[in-house]
Formats: sequence, C-alpha cells, structure tokens
Amino acid sequence: MEKELTTEKLMELYKNRRFADLRMVLLDTEAADIATFVEEQLDKKEQIFFFRLLPKELASDVFVEFDSDTQESLIKAFTDKELKAVIDDMFLDDTVDIIDEMPANVVKRILLAADPEERKTINELLEYPDDSAGSLMTPEFVSLSANMTVADAFDKIRRTGVNKETIYTCYVTDIRKRLIGVVTVKDLLLAEKETLIEDIMTTNTVAIETLEDKEEVALKFQKYAHLALPVIDKEGCIVGIITVDDAVDVMQEEATEDIQIMAAITPDDKPYLKTSPFKIFANRAPWLLILMISATFTGLILNSYEGELSALNGGVIGSLLIACVPMLMDSGGNAGSQSSATVVRSIALNEVKFGDIFKIMWKEFCAGLMLAITLGIVCFAKLQLIDRLLFKYNYTFEISFVVSLCLAITILLSKIVGCALPLLAKKCKLDPAVMASPFITTIVDALSLVIYCSIAIAILG
Amino acid sequence: MEKELTTEKLMELYKNRRFADLRMVLLDTEAADIATFVEEQLDKKEQIFFFRLLPKELASDVFVEFDSDTQESLIKAFTDKELKAVIDDMFLDDTVDIIDEMPANVVKRILLAADPEERKTINELLEYPDDSAGSLMTPEFVSLSANMTVADAFDKIRRTGVNKETIYTCYVTDIRKRLIGVVTVKDLLLAEKETLIEDIMTTNTVAIETLEDKEEVALKFQKYAHLALPVIDKEGCIVGIITVDDAVDVMQEEATEDIQIMAAITPDDKPYLKTSPFKIFANRAPWLLILMISATFTGLILNSYEGELSALNGGVIGSLLIACVPMLMDSGGNAGSQSSATVVRSIALNEVKFGDIFKIMWKEFCAGLMLAITLGIVCFAKLQLIDRLLFKYNYTFEISFVVSLCLAITILLSKIVGCALPLLAKKCKLDPAVMASPFITTIVDALSLVIYCSIAIAILG
Repeated sequence: MEKELTTEKLMELYKNRRFADLRMVLLDTEAADIATFVEEQLDKKEQIFFFRLLPKELASDVFVEFDSDTQESLIKAFTDKELKAVIDDMFLDDTVDIIDEMPANVVKRILLAADPEERKTINELLEYPDDSAGSLMTPEFVSLSANMTVADAFDKIRRTGVNKETIYTCYVTDIRKRLIGVVTVKDLLLAEKETLIEDIMTTNTVAIETLEDKEEVALKFQKYAHLALPVIDKEGCIVGIITVDDAVDVMQEEATEDIQIMAAITPDDKPYLKTSPFKIFANRAPWLLILMISATFTGLILNSYEGELSALNGGVIGSLLIACVPMLMDSGGNAGSQSSATVVRSIALNEVKFGDIFKIMWKEFCAGLMLAITLGIVCFAKLQLIDRLLFKYNYTFEISFVVSLCLAITILLSKIVGCALPLLAKKCKLDPAVMASPFITTIVDALSLVIYCSIAIAILG
Repeated sequence: MEKELTTEKLMELYKNRRFADLRMVLLDTEAADIATFVEEQLDKKEQIFFFRLLPKELASDVFVEFDSDTQESLIKAFTDKELKAVIDDMFLDDTVDIIDEMPANVVKRILLAADPEERKTINELLEYPDDSAGSLMTPEFVSLSANMTVADAFDKIRRTGVNKETIYTCYVTDIRKRLIGVVTVKDLLLAEKETLIEDIMTTNTVAIETLEDKEEVALKFQKYAHLALPVIDKEGCIVGIITVDDAVDVMQEEATEDIQIMAAITPDDKPYLKTSPFKIFANRAPWLLILMISATFTGLILNSYEGELSALNGGVIGSLLIACVPMLMDSGGNAGSQSSATVVRSIALNEVKFGDIFKIMWKEFCAGLMLAITLGIVCFAKLQLIDRLLFKYNYTFEISFVVSLCLAITILLSKIVGCALPLLAKKCKLDPAVMASPFITTIVDALSLVIYCSIAIAILG
C-alpha cells in the first residue's frame, strides 16, 4: 500500500480510538512504515501510548526501525517488563546497534533487561571495533551437522528457525564448531529427504573474518550476491552471520561518508534534519579553517610576485594576468577533483589498487594531455574573441599565449597530482577521500600560481 | 577460500591439464571468482578454451559475472548450440542486461538463440526505460494461489523452483494474475502442511510499479530489508520481481554517479581501468570547458574593478587585496560544496524533500553564521600575525577588517546558495548533483568577488 494511504488510515483509526481495527491494520503493515508514522505524526507522549497498542509480535520489529532519539525516549518510558519483552524479541546485532547509540544509564537498563546468556553475548559483540565485521554480525543462525539428512535439517529449521535472523542459508559445522560447509534452503527443498547434508553442501565457502573491515564485507556481498555470509574467528569456527540488509546499510553509509569527506566535512551518520546547527558547524569548521589557512600560501605567492608583475609594462599587463588567476585556479581545481574523485571511488569499489598506480598515471597523463590541449586552445580563442574583441581588454597574442599555456600545464599537472595522491594516501593507510577535492584544490592552486607567475615573467618580462 | 589460493590452485590444475580435477574444484568455487580468474589470468584464446571446460551447470553463472568485453568476445567464439545453452540457463534480467551492452549483430544472435517464448519476454523487458524498475526485473518467480495448502506450495516450489531467481518469497495471485499477497518460505516452513496459503500470506505488500525510478527501488530495499520485491503493472498484475542483489548494484551505481557528477564528470558506469583515455577525456572535457568559460565572469569582474582598486593608495592596497582573492574564493567554494554535497546526498537517500527547504535554509543560516564569525576572526588574526608580523606585508587593521568581513559574508552566502540550489534543481526535475560542487563554486566565486571589490572600495576608497 502507498505510504500516504497507510498514514491516513492509521491516523483515522487511531483518532477514533478504534484500537481493535487499528491492530488488524498494523499486523499487515510494514514495520518501517509504522515507525515512520509514529515518528512523523505523533508527539512523544502519544508515541509511547501508540507503541503499547502494537501487537506483541510487531513491537520489536517497529522498535528497531526508530531513530535513536525515539528509541531512547521510549526506553525511558518503558517499564522493566516492557523493555525485557522488546529486547528478548530483537536480534542481537540490532540490540548491539541500539546500545552503541545510547547513554550509559540506558545501556545499563538494557543489559539488565537481557537474559544472563544474552548479556554475555551482547558484551562480546560490543568488544568488536566499530568498523569491523564483528560489529555487524549476529550469532543467531541455523547450524547443521554434515551427517544429518535433509529431513533432519528441516526438523531443526522448524524447531529453531523462528528466532534466527535468516533460515535460508544454514551453516554446517563439525563438533568443534568449525565451519565446513553451507547449504541453502533451496538446496534442501530440491533434494530428496534421505540425502545427507554432506552430499549437497558447498564446501568452498566465502567467509568473513571477525576483524575484517566492514567496507570489505559490503563489497563481498556485492561481488557474490549471497543473502548472508558467515563470520569466522581465527580458528575457523563460525561465530555469527551477516545478512545482506546490514551490508546494504554499510554500503550507503560508506558512500555518504566518502561524499562528506570529499566535500571537506567530518563524517556524521545522523540524518541531516536531525543534526543540530551546532553539530553541523562543528563538523565543518575544522576543515574550512585548515583550508583557509593553507590558502595563505597562494596569497603569499601572489604578494611575492607582485613587484615583478607590476613592473611588466607599468602594471597594465600585471593586472590583465591577475584577472585570469581565478579561471586558472578553478580549472586546475576542477581538473584535479575529477581525477581524484574517480580514483577515490574506484578504490572504494575495489576496482583499483596501489599496484595500478603507473597504469592510472599513464591513463591520466593521456587524458590530461588531450584536455590540456583542448582547454588551452579554447582559452586562447576565448581571450581573443570575448575579452579582447568584445570587452576591449588588451589581451595581446603574447599574453593570451602565456595564459593558455599555463592553463594547459596546470590541467596536466592537476590530473597527475589528482590521481596519485589518493593512491598514495591509501598506501600510507590514510583515507583516500581526504586527499580528494579540498586538498587537491589547495595544492593545485599553489602549484599553478608559481608556474603562472614564473612563466609570465620569463616570457613577457 | 581466499582469492589468491583459488587463483593459484586453478592455474596449477589448468597448466598441468588436469581437467577432471579442475572441474571438481570449479564446482566448489564461486562463479564471481572463476570469472575474475578467467579475465585476469587468461588471454582471449585461452578464455574460450577454459570456458568450455566449465561444468555445464556453472557456465551461465560464470558468464553473467564477466564484463561486457569478455562476454562479447566469448559470444563471437560460441557455436550456436553453446550460445543457446548459456542463454537458456540465464535469468532473463541478466540476458537483458547483457543485450543492453552488445552491438546489434551480437544482439541478433542472442535473440535467435533464445526460445520464441523467451524472445518475446526479452523484447518486452527491453522496452522499459533504462532507469525504470521494469529494466531491473525478471519474470522468473514462484506464483501461488490463495487456496493452495502449504504442502501444495512446497510441491510447486520443488517442481518449478530450479529456474526461479528466488524461491524464498512466493507471490500469491488471483486468476487475473493480480498480486494479492506474499508468502515466504519461512512462513511455509513454520506452518502446518494443511494450512491454506490465504491464512498465512501477508496482504498489505510493498510493491513497485514498472516505471518507478530504479533509485526509488533501491531505497525501498534499504527501507524494508526484503530479499525480493514484486513489480506490478497499472492493473495491479504482477509482471516480475526484483531481487536484492540487483538493488545493491543500483545503489552502488547511483552513489558512483552522484560522486562523478559532483566532481564535474559525465557519469560512466564502466570501471576506471577499462575506460579508454579518450573516453575519459570525452567525459570530462565538456564540464571543464563550461566551467572555464563561466569563470570568465570572475575575470571580467576583476578587470572592471581594476581601475578603482589600483587608485586605492597608488595600487599598494589593491595588490594586497588581490592577494587575498584566492583564499576568499576557495573558502567560499569549500563552504558552498559542504552544504550542497550534504543536501544532494540527503536528497538521494530520501531524507529531505523540497518541502523542507525553509527548515534547511534556516539550519544552514545558523551553522553558516557560526562558521562566518569563526572564520572571520581567525582570518583577521592570521592576516595580522602571519602576513603582517611575520612576512611584513602592510595589512593594516582596516584592510584586514575588510578581508575578514568579506570572508564572513561569502561563507554565509555560500551556505545559503549551496543548500538551496540542489533543492531547487530537484524541484525543476534537474539532477541535484549537477548543482553541487562545480556550479556552486562558479556562482560563489562571482558573488564573492563583487561583494569584496565593492566593500573594499566603499571602506578603503
């Protein structure tokens, strides 16, 4: 059903206090839609009231979909019993995600509400670094033995499947819990009942290690198109699984993060509308300050050439040259960002690695040369036709040549710097995205100014 | 198994012509890994030879994983019978994807190799626009009737499931093929055998319309975390399904596209290393040219103020002011891209819509004001301490005040322009990303120069 229709219908039933009907409709509504309805249409007080109306089997599904502010205020309003019911019904990876966002006193309440067994597992999961596979996984999966028959497997799935995050991929382990194979429900359904699991399982399984970077995890899901992947420890024992929905979230987060970093913002995974202006300020100010200070160099360069530039033909040429500085710097910056953004994204998608650096630089050199020549020629024509003929500024052939030549050199240089820096950053274990747009611009600015001023003085002086 | 190990093992068996063993290993290797091995380790001639060694049931899985160049050269080497075997075993959405990339004569061969029935469906699928849900879907799904029992359903899945892209979500239709519900294999497994499908199916199903934008489709997968979603036509009849792996690819493509556009590149979905330098040139040149020409304005603005600026105290002040232009323009550009990139990404993730424009502008105004004040103060201090005290340039209090004031105004303005433009673009059905980085920079450059020159002349003149 369309979202607008759902909202209207829920609102109507809720307003008219037709709670029995409301529950019937809710049972047939997506948890994500219910959560959106609660957050967008109801105030804090109504939210907890509405949440209590939810059919028991839906409560934790909806709870997981809320953003952390709503979750926090609901937990504070819950009785201990309510909290326990919600926590018990959640998958452990979701519980851990929620705990990560909550203040200490709320975390304490959540841990108290969990069973001792669960609490132990939660604490183990919390130990994994934030960007590791371990932090994404859930220990709730179906495990089978190699000597079970297909019928045994179905029995086990029926008995234990309700509380597993996925039943479609089952993991075959030996007595030491080492992962020896994978079997899907499709394999099981298409096999005879007496077949042994070991005869239909796939043994050469793609697996993830607990400390693997979650970006790598997302790329593995993209590459292999599985619905779930097993996570193993150093001994090869399976400790959990990651499902594709979690990988999807990671992909979107990583892309957002790269875009933010390339735009010179400290990454923040909170949705924009929920971020306070002060937080926005705090995420942006350091970068703007660093870049402003580093732009000091360009000022110093301009000032230091000032004397010689104004000596050229009594300052007339100097001011004509300086008027072209913004165009030169912008073009250099744009050319550099084109290369760096391309390389940064290719690194993120695992399409290129450091070993490709010479291949990449050669490619950028070829493309850069073509761009340099094209832009140089167009720039020369533009100066002659627009600036000289149309606006009557005295851009002689000589001056136009100097500007166009420097533009061409700047473009070529920007391309080389732009593709090499992210790769070098990656090699030095820095974030390649940081080396993209903002820094490239600053570096290219300074480089192009020095080249411009020295060539101009050499040729025109 | 790790990729390096797989490669080594495959190479060894292949080199020693131990083809029977090779086949055994291949059967237990991921199709994506085999494809990588074939593309990275073998030359064209060996590729077709190796492909013929593949166990029949693997051939089309591996074929789908190749990039389009390899696919084309293989198809050209195939006999008609081989081509037919591969095509018959592929899911129709994959066939359509491949056809989209092939030259006309290869397309003709593929269509001739398909069954008449299949050919008809392929042609229907090819009709859907490239960015629509229809272009992503496959008609190979399991459909059930509401009056079947769970046991009937399992029978049908066992009979027809082998050739379906997914069996885990089954679609319940009436006699006119209208979608009336969804039931998962998990529901089926956890229900009694005699239960009727209509008693366990979910009726309020999330569905996608054939012409829905594929970006929306990807977002629905992220929101609802389903493994497959049904695609319906205007009459509500189910015409196909989209599986989560296709949605994952769309997400990555869309993020790449946004990053490319923000970096002023015409989007291209080919991996970087496979793109020719000329294609790279062609994707980048138009934007660089447009931006260079538009930077003409900044040159004209500088030239037109030139006279008045050099009149200030015999040109000394003028050149000090001009040395600050790059810093001013860079900071404005960076401040603007921060806002525009944030808003562009939020639009892409459906977190903000045009209706939020005033909320967003207010937020940017508040954050912008804090940034403006901070950067203004730091800039003033920098001019006094570094440029004046350290480097002995004559930045008086007055000049420093003018520069810092203009910086603050530029920052604030850039923030407002940066957040508003992408939203306006979205409203006008243009791509918000185009309005991000490059154009923002150009607009902010021109604006800040005019403000700078006029304020300087007003205060210092």
